[in-house]
Amino acid sequence: MIEVYAYATPNSVKVPIALEELGLTYALRPVDVKQGWQKREEFLALNPNGKVPVLVQTDPVSGERQALTESAAILVHLAESTGSLLPATGNVRARVFEQLFFHASAVSPSFGNAGYFSRLAAEPQPQAQQRFSGEAKRITVLLDRLFAEREFAAGAQYTIADIAHFGWYWRRAFAGVELDAHPNLSRWYTAVEQRPAVQRAIGRVNALATAA
Amino acid sequence: MIEVYAYATPNSVKVPIALEELGLTYALRPVDVKQGWQKREEFLALNPNGKVPVLVQTDPVSGERQALTESAAILVHLAESTGSLLPATGNVRARVFEQLFFHASAVSPSFGNAGYFSRLAAEPQPQAQQRFSGEAKRITVLLDRLFAEREFAAGAQYTIADIAHFGWYWRRAFAGVELDAHPNLSRWYTAVEQRPAVQRAIGRVNALATAA
Repeated sequence: MIEVYAYATPNSVKVPIALEELGLTYALRPVDVKQGWQKREEFLALNPNGKVPVLVQTDPVSGERQALTESAAILVHLAESTGSLLPATGNVRARVFEQLFFHASAVSPSFGNAGYFSRLAAEPQPQAQQRFSGEAKRITVLLDRLFAEREFAAGAQYTIADIAHFGWYWRRAFAGVELDAHPNLSRWYTAVEQRPAVQRAIGRVNALATAA
Repeated sequence: MIEVYAYATPNSVKVPIALEELGLTYALRPVDVKQGWQKREEFLALNPNGKVPVLVQTDPVSGERQALTESAAILVHLAESTGSLLPATGNVRARVFEQLFFHASAVSPSFGNAGYFSRLAAEPQPQAQQRFSGEAKRITVLLDRLFAEREFAAGAQYTIADIAHFGWYWRRAFAGVELDAHPNLSRWYTAVEQRPAVQRAIGRVNALATAA
């Protein structure tokens, strides 16, 4: 059995997208981060870092539950377990990891902090807000240039690197990022958003927020 | 031929450590980030993101140069090319990726931003400084607990996940992080630091700063 502890967040949505693309059955377990459920004791037992998503796989024989954290590590695990969405060798494989780590170290923290300092910080921190909003825009320009040369994030094929980038561009309004001036990135975003698996995953994570 | 564009930085040092562990020959190319060389046109041609390190491999037959960016993506590429420092399958492999992405998305941005707002920001941004310094300390406590249960970052074996974490703990003073109150993390740090390959890599990247 596959369970995904998640909410309607940029990092959460990546895991249901991959599971839908792979045709795997899973149960979504809501973790209402707006109410702080990710800091509850039972959730910290799954992820001491207190972040969604978490993938939990139960061994059908032993009944043992294994939890895996970090959305991109879950994407790599699912891709390697199924032999899909990540080439086994070669240059495109290296480009997938390059984009996954660019996402984790640059896209995700700049978008998250741009939103935090624009919307959530208790006192205005104008230099911090400018630093992260500027970084989110710089990264968006870099990705627009990448998508001028590549159909998908790592080359001609759709891979888990596209799923990673999609998570935060789906929630780009939080970071104050717009796609209008970036035609190549817009073209890529629309192509990914229109995939039936992506639509199903978005529907399921949005329903978590509505139900809570 | 292997070339590494690098400086004496937390992310740069990871690549020479891996190359020394693997016994591979490489040339270090200094990129003096204190003088802004990472924003020069010839460097941006290798990495449009303007960050060190970059690995450049030249095909011995065609002479073609391939550049790979993102320190953790370089670690994965070197490990998979040589079959070392990353198990080919199984739970430890999943734990390596979990730690690599925890490093990229949590350790690296919190340490980098804690140092920036404590030392480099033009105007004081006290809430931003507290946010990132607090996050760097929270993460350090989490890793101390991890190393109470595991000898190395992903389990009983030394892997590229240890090399990733070492980079920023080697430069922890920039982030205002100390090891004194964290005995398990201290034990791990000393074990990694004492490895001959790690010592050789530190010597080589420190020499870049001295020579510049």
